[in-house]
Amino acid sequence: MNELSTAAVIGLGLVGGSVARDLARQGVRVLGHDSNPASLRQAQEAGAVHALLGPGFAGVEEADVVILAVPVKTAAELLRALAPRLQSALLVTDTGSTKRSAVAAAEAAGLGARFVGAHPLAGDHRAGFAASREGLLLNARVYLCPAPSATPAALRAARGFWSGLGATPLELEPDDHDLRLAWSSHLPQLISSLLGSVLAEAGVAPRELGPGGRSVTRLAASDRELWSQICLDNADHLEPALRLVEERLRAVRQALAEGDQPAVRRLFGQASAWKG
Amino acid sequence: MNELSTAAVIGLGLVGGSVARDLARQGVRVLGHDSNPASLRQAQEAGAVHALLGPGFAGVEEADVVILAVPVKTAAELLRALAPRLQSALLVTDTGSTKRSAVAAAEAAGLGARFVGAHPLAGDHRAGFAASREGLLLNARVYLCPAPSATPAALRAARGFWSGLGATPLELEPDDHDLRLAWSSHLPQLISSLLGSVLAEAGVAPRELGPGGRSVTRLAASDRELWSQICLDNADHLEPALRLVEERLRAVRQALAEGDQPAVRRLFGQASAWKG
Repeated sequence: MNELSTAAVIGLGLVGGSVARDLARQGVRVLGHDSNPASLRQAQEAGAVHALLGPGFAGVEEADVVILAVPVKTAAELLRALAPRLQSALLVTDTGSTKRSAVAAAEAAGLGARFVGAHPLAGDHRAGFAASREGLLLNARVYLCPAPSATPAALRAARGFWSGLGATPLELEPDDHDLRLAWSSHLPQLISSLLGSVLAEAGVAPRELGPGGRSVTRLAASDRELWSQICLDNADHLEPALRLVEERLRAVRQALAEGDQPAVRRLFGQASAWKG
Repeated sequence: MNELSTAAVIGLGLVGGSVARDLARQGVRVLGHDSNPASLRQAQEAGAVHALLGPGFAGVEEADVVILAVPVKTAAELLRALAPRLQSALLVTDTGSTKRSAVAAAEAAGLGARFVGAHPLAGDHRAGFAASREGLLLNARVYLCPAPSATPAALRAARGFWSGLGATPLELEPDDHDLRLAWSSHLPQLISSLLGSVLAEAGVAPRELGPGGRSVTRLAASDRELWSQICLDNADHLEPALRLVEERLRAVRQALAEGDQPAVRRLFGQASAWKG
């Protein structure tokens, strides 16, 4: 995107903060906003944000590119609220882990022509600007989901924008994206958090876990609000995945109760063959 | 253990191989055995094993200390088979992740006086001598479960032996050990493998996962035989843990289906508060 001179980054957490850092380093003027005053102050001190958006996001209309790096429900709400002020932006994009709701909100708000949803696979269990860093997007996969009425220019701008941060774009239909990610990302996150909550309930402290158990529960530390919104937004695709885990869990519990060695060995064998 | 001049290490995988390396480095003569010829050869080439035990474990009677670093069912079988040849050892110990069966087998085989079961928290998803390394036990917790008739001298020897490898011993009753580990280790391992097998079934490739999903499924690569034996051996303590996960999984699936935001936020909140 050669035309890019001003960007507005709304949400300066791990992903938004890292995007702001990279843009600022590339000489782009970054306008920033975050509901958390600490993240805002840290972003300014780090030189990742040059000016703050005013009350009601005043100034956002100056941006060539607007990046919404906020929880997915909040992103859909912001697209509706800000639509009248984003009519001259070249590109409106986001970073959410679900894409149907963002694309639908942008289209409904009359922003479809310039909206290309994005999902960079660069998340982590840490949150806030303090967790951001330059180069976070380097070599990360980024899924792009253009709105149905997105222009070729908007799609080119989105590809250029994310490639410019070092990420590798791959276009997907929003529903295909949400289905794939339900299994490959949202399910593992939910299982890790579920295990953490069960261990909490059983009175097992994190320090009692070995290196393996710590790895399985690492994501349990993830941000509550961010992940509640993702799972609720993608509930229909998550449902069959959760149901399958439940069925397999019941089956292995019964196999253990019956001392069914072949069934137990089959489970561990299938898992280790998959992992390679 | 100042008296230690010869040790027999049966099983030269990740843990046994690392123990052999450390002992050899400390000047102890190490007699080794492994059912896998590749691990045996590698252990000799690395200087971790000075001589092989003969057919039928011939030569094991020369050892001051005998370490069984094999899957838990195999360890119990070996204790029974080798008991007549271990009557002059100062210490017989093991490295298994369950302790009731090993202690009971040692006691029943007349080895109780010299048996102190051990469980070093130094496992990994990798297996075989190729995964072993010097210093693996350094600062690792090691649970010690003396047999009911273990002598004070055997317990002192066990403490000295494992401390000498840099580990930090903590004594536990075998049943207390198996109950705690069912929750803090065997449950996370089983959940990680179960998730891996479900993703395999759903046709999701490991490379489709982001860093978070890879962390949750890291243990899915663990050795099938080792973990089947552990889970079958500890089935009674694992059962309530698996049942609780199943119940909580059903509850969150229903909360998602009903769009019950407070319930979903409660789950993620409990998990992140636990992880700290």
